[in-house]
Amino acid sequence: MKFRIKKKCHNARSGLLELQHGSVRTPVFMTIGTYGAVRGLCKNDLENCKTEMMLCNAYHLMNNVANICFDQSISLHEYISWDKPILTDSGGYQVFSLSSLTKISEEGVTFKSPQNGDTIFLSPEKAIDVQIKLGSDIMMIFDECAKYPLSWELTRTSMELSLHWARLSKNSNYSSNPLFGIVQGGMYDDLREISLNELLNLNFDGYALGGLSVGEPNELREDIVTNFAPKLPFDKPRYLMGVGKPQDIIRAVNSGIDMFDCVIPTRNGRNGQLFTNNGTVNIRNKKYENDLEPIDSGCPCFTCKNYSKSMLRHLDKCNDALAARLMSIHNVYFYQDLMSRIRASIENDSLDALSKDIIEAFEEKK
Amino acid sequence: MKFRIKKKCHNARSGLLELQHGSVRTPVFMTIGTYGAVRGLCKNDLENCKTEMMLCNAYHLMNNVANICFDQSISLHEYISWDKPILTDSGGYQVFSLSSLTKISEEGVTFKSPQNGDTIFLSPEKAIDVQIKLGSDIMMIFDECAKYPLSWELTRTSMELSLHWARLSKNSNYSSNPLFGIVQGGMYDDLREISLNELLNLNFDGYALGGLSVGEPNELREDIVTNFAPKLPFDKPRYLMGVGKPQDIIRAVNSGIDMFDCVIPTRNGRNGQLFTNNGTVNIRNKKYENDLEPIDSGCPCFTCKNYSKSMLRHLDKCNDALAARLMSIHNVYFYQDLMSRIRASIENDSLDALSKDIIEAFEEKK
Repeated sequence: MKFRIKKKCHNARSGLLELQHGSVRTPVFMTIGTYGAVRGLCKNDLENCKTEMMLCNAYHLMNNVANICFDQSISLHEYISWDKPILTDSGGYQVFSLSSLTKISEEGVTFKSPQNGDTIFLSPEKAIDVQIKLGSDIMMIFDECAKYPLSWELTRTSMELSLHWARLSKNSNYSSNPLFGIVQGGMYDDLREISLNELLNLNFDGYALGGLSVGEPNELREDIVTNFAPKLPFDKPRYLMGVGKPQDIIRAVNSGIDMFDCVIPTRNGRNGQLFTNNGTVNIRNKKYENDLEPIDSGCPCFTCKNYSKSMLRHLDKCNDALAARLMSIHNVYFYQDLMSRIRASIENDSLDALSKDIIEAFEEKK
Repeated sequence: MKFRIKKKCHNARSGLLELQHGSVRTPVFMTIGTYGAVRGLCKNDLENCKTEMMLCNAYHLMNNVANICFDQSISLHEYISWDKPILTDSGGYQVFSLSSLTKISEEGVTFKSPQNGDTIFLSPEKAIDVQIKLGSDIMMIFDECAKYPLSWELTRTSMELSLHWARLSKNSNYSSNPLFGIVQGGMYDDLREISLNELLNLNFDGYALGGLSVGEPNELREDIVTNFAPKLPFDKPRYLMGVGKPQDIIRAVNSGIDMFDCVIPTRNGRNGQLFTNNGTVNIRNKKYENDLEPIDSGCPCFTCKNYSKSMLRHLDKCNDALAARLMSIHNVYFYQDLMSRIRASIENDSLDALSKDIIEAFEEKK
């Protein structure tokens, strides 16, 4: 992995991240394909939406897909027919958010699979092993994501467990795949400082801010990002996990973040919320019933080039999977286009103006 | 509408059907897009599958879409972004199969909408009006589809009502759109003879065999098709409604049928049943879990070119809409390719050999 910063604009940076499966321009938004696919979208859809990188979840792929890939000597990329970079999340977040009956020890977590009820043990070593088997371009350490709200004492215990697991993750990486550390510490600056400093000693290939977008007020998250993004190593990629709305992204870019992922474009798209430069459109609104205009007449995405708001609303009402797909395509394109405009604005010193536009469009109309 | 028979092979014919939105080679299989979309598939998917014609249901489009099209002076084709021919079914079949509380009179049918419970009155005149508003390339008369089994007396009453409605349908066509008659009469040859002869007097643009694939034994349906397909006017398109499996199609082609529609490729595809030249594959079978080969290594469809059986099975297990879509694409392509091979075999006098292959592949392994 190589990371090169091309241009700075205050704390914001545009750069190039070279990975095993290709180069990615930063700031980058990774589209989420939990199970190895962005729901309903094929590789061509994603390429047409200018997606440069996908995020997949080791948690959802560890029982079958990772073994298939390993046994048959192929990477996840080949399995899912996607030849561009993939970042894999380690599964820590999913273990704590999706599983019942989790039993935590220093060694790892025992939980019931929400798919089939099987008892599964997941450790830092196993999470890394799965990610290596998948041939991930960027692997994430296995950590515990503290709930919100949580007391200082419990957050400290959780953060220290995550640090222990960070060491185990690092030591168990028998591959040359890049591995990112994840700063935890909940909503407490002093705990995040400790987490960050210990992770810096472990010398990861990149650093993420984790444990955010877990229900805390926006202002609290923004304060933490504003404070901690600039403290992450300057010459390594900085990744804000699970964020977010367009205004959250552009604010974080201004603090120096390079990488993002979020379910919003796809999940909200499937539910009829569509992003435009003038804010969001809810396709389920009755006023679009007879509206033969596209979602955004200036948008060159496949959906806007071929389908009207009226048709999308009709398909959505009929529960046709094509509605979810076409609306996801529009939103994924919007997010990729947003990142492209953000990168351009850093390079031509107009980030302030773009930030103002984005924040106005989305915060006034949200 | 123009219909030209290019080549005959016993009763089978290959031909060209020229319609307002383009030419279609016959025998043709129309992919079903009930609500104006083939579930989950966009126009590009359909074109890549070599689909030449779609069937849409007036019943499902009459309350909103037909009015939008009429009010804004566009055709259904523009609304759904599909510029090739569309045949619209009149809604008769749906009224009787999907609706509760139907009240039938000589004038038409009153029923509760299964979508919203509204009381709807549908008459031959209204069914034609809706189809004209949609700008259909081929319209179907409004008729009653007799249930199976049904006594001779009740079937006669139903058939006579359908004949009455056929006259009303014909008389209410204020457009130049071609309108097809539908031969009814259930499983009774004498009633079908009466139906056919009366419809011939009305001089429709094409003729369909209706009231089949309603639960009767295959042999009974085959006998009726074998007997009645050749009696439909030679120089007009002959359409067998709601059929069927590959072996049913090729048998009907041998009897002289030119047009088909059926939910099998899409519905079965969504449920993991995939067609190949060697019979069907059920992707949910555990034996495909590690199978990195495509559904059919000789198939050039998008799905087979890019995804393995293992990946399709994984996506299907995860309930990702992409699974349903990719499997529909394969089956739609298979059906279009089947029709293409049927047409070629008529033209080069090898229909007997192809018929034998198809019947063996599907009847032995069903």
